[in-house]
Amino acid sequence: MDRMFNVGIVGATGAVGEELIKLLEERKFPLSDLRLFASAASKGRVIEACGRSCVVDVPSADGFRSLDIVFFSAGSGTSKQFTPIAVEAGARVIDNSSAFRMDANVPLVVPEINPDALTADTTIAAVPNCTAIMLVMGIAPLRKLGKIQRVIVSTYQAASGAGAKAMQELIDQTKQVLQGEKPIPVQFPHQIAFNLFSHNTPIDETGLNEEERKVVAETQKILSDPSIEVTPTCVRVPILRAHTESVHIIFDREIEEGAARLAYDGFPGVRVIDDRANNTFPMPIDASGTDDVLVGRIRKDLYNIRALNLLISGDQLRKGAALNSIQIAEEMIKFVRERSLV
Amino acid sequence: MDRMFNVGIVGATGAVGEELIKLLEERKFPLSDLRLFASAASKGRVIEACGRSCVVDVPSADGFRSLDIVFFSAGSGTSKQFTPIAVEAGARVIDNSSAFRMDANVPLVVPEINPDALTADTTIAAVPNCTAIMLVMGIAPLRKLGKIQRVIVSTYQAASGAGAKAMQELIDQTKQVLQGEKPIPVQFPHQIAFNLFSHNTPIDETGLNEEERKVVAETQKILSDPSIEVTPTCVRVPILRAHTESVHIIFDREIEEGAARLAYDGFPGVRVIDDRANNTFPMPIDASGTDDVLVGRIRKDLYNIRALNLLISGDQLRKGAALNSIQIAEEMIKFVRERSLV
Repeated sequence: MDRMFNVGIVGATGAVGEELIKLLEERKFPLSDLRLFASAASKGRVIEACGRSCVVDVPSADGFRSLDIVFFSAGSGTSKQFTPIAVEAGARVIDNSSAFRMDANVPLVVPEINPDALTADTTIAAVPNCTAIMLVMGIAPLRKLGKIQRVIVSTYQAASGAGAKAMQELIDQTKQVLQGEKPIPVQFPHQIAFNLFSHNTPIDETGLNEEERKVVAETQKILSDPSIEVTPTCVRVPILRAHTESVHIIFDREIEEGAARLAYDGFPGVRVIDDRANNTFPMPIDASGTDDVLVGRIRKDLYNIRALNLLISGDQLRKGAALNSIQIAEEMIKFVRERSLV
Repeated sequence: MDRMFNVGIVGATGAVGEELIKLLEERKFPLSDLRLFASAASKGRVIEACGRSCVVDVPSADGFRSLDIVFFSAGSGTSKQFTPIAVEAGARVIDNSSAFRMDANVPLVVPEINPDALTADTTIAAVPNCTAIMLVMGIAPLRKLGKIQRVIVSTYQAASGAGAKAMQELIDQTKQVLQGEKPIPVQFPHQIAFNLFSHNTPIDETGLNEEERKVVAETQKILSDPSIEVTPTCVRVPILRAHTESVHIIFDREIEEGAARLAYDGFPGVRVIDDRANNTFPMPIDASGTDDVLVGRIRKDLYNIRALNLLISGDQLRKGAALNSIQIAEEMIKFVRERSLV
């Protein structure tokens, strides 16, 4: 019989944690034990997950004992504090936070794009920022046509990127506005209902906010190309759980539109939705709850024969976080199984 | 005493029509007679406007008689049909539709930018597309720093651009989604509540939709520079009445960020909101109901010393339509008054 795995989820009560549980089930992950961890506020809560009743605990060395894989999705502070403890306890860590993403010793992995960044010895793997994941999924298939030199991207980011409470805030504020009330923002610095704003992360002296800096650095790391020039503008929109991106891509040579569309053929995890006759292109409501990243509005630039424009939309909680994490886990268990065959 | 003017509004019951009436009052337009026109469905409706009770009528040569200025905001079909009749009746026409915008004999006017396109003899003036107005208001002040060669813009367009019924559809659909119902789109081809989509206008063989083609052609015409290369991606977002635009601008020379910020000083109709410390930049809720176009997130590109990035947000019904129309009327009556002094 195939080896089964003991799995832990730190941040199990959050939006990504919930999605991780759903995906372990959906994808029939070879699960032996499942342990759920969250902050002290959730300790003792019972969650039905993958056919068992799990009592939520706070993370600890004891709790991590005999776990094979621990998913972290509780912010970079928690990841920094507990990842070494989980690794020390013998687990492999798949981290959704930004804690280790730019660590030269930690692979930053989108399995469709750079699975080789993982090795049999990987103990910590980082899941990229959700906006970076959508971007690389949308542009990586085009690299077979030419070298990507430059990317100018404006984002339409969902509330889910800021967690379950932020999604609830969008819903609550929307109700308030419809009732003629003025919402008081809590999770976000500004009203999100029927509004949008520049991404709510600190801006440094370069003029970029933290989210934009992640998109630049992580895109370069995932694509193993520090020369790619990425100019992002990250914007939060009143949408629940799928990010959309409007992308202008400049290559080192002329690119034909038809060839660009064909470049996605057979690329796993990407679905082209590019129906000009019916004016149907990637939309958050179609991306929500699905695994595929949607790509469309593919068109050659009117002025630059080396440039393409397109739209990308993908579920922030799925491919942007939980699904990508599970895919990394699936790659990791291949190594473990191969090793046990030797 | 200053001369007063007889004014007509075709499309008086629409979203822009309502805003025109508000602005005539707010700006103390020297109004003598006011006549409101709409489709047969609204004939006979009584609207309180500028201190008088107006009975809505269908447009006709008779109705236009002795009017000095007629605003058209009822779609390009109505404009094409009734503008010649209004002009024949002796009125000057200010047209919000796309009917005459690219007509070489019709000035396309944003009064802060190209007031000289109007002359004492102008009988028809066109109001640009709302997305083009926001764009030129945001970039025109920068021309004193260098020649603008290229603009790559992604838009976040409000429902109001599609009219009052579309705004209501956003509200109704939002309520439906909050109640767990699946909305059926009527005004838009796709669900607008908690969703976004590529602009709902036909796409031609260039891959651009009609809205994007307007942005390209009208920007070039307003700025009197057919060499400006504009690459737009127009997207509809679930916001009521202000358009936002994320813009990448390439100049013919290096541009300093500080100089760019200063370039807006004293430029009428633009307000810079660029508070990095408090993460406060142009937002639709701040732009809504105000006359100024908001500009912020002004930053030098990380890779191209000749490029700037910024965000623009402006009220689609005000500066994007009704306000710009009234401003054109104000320019026109200056000519009439100057002429009567001679």
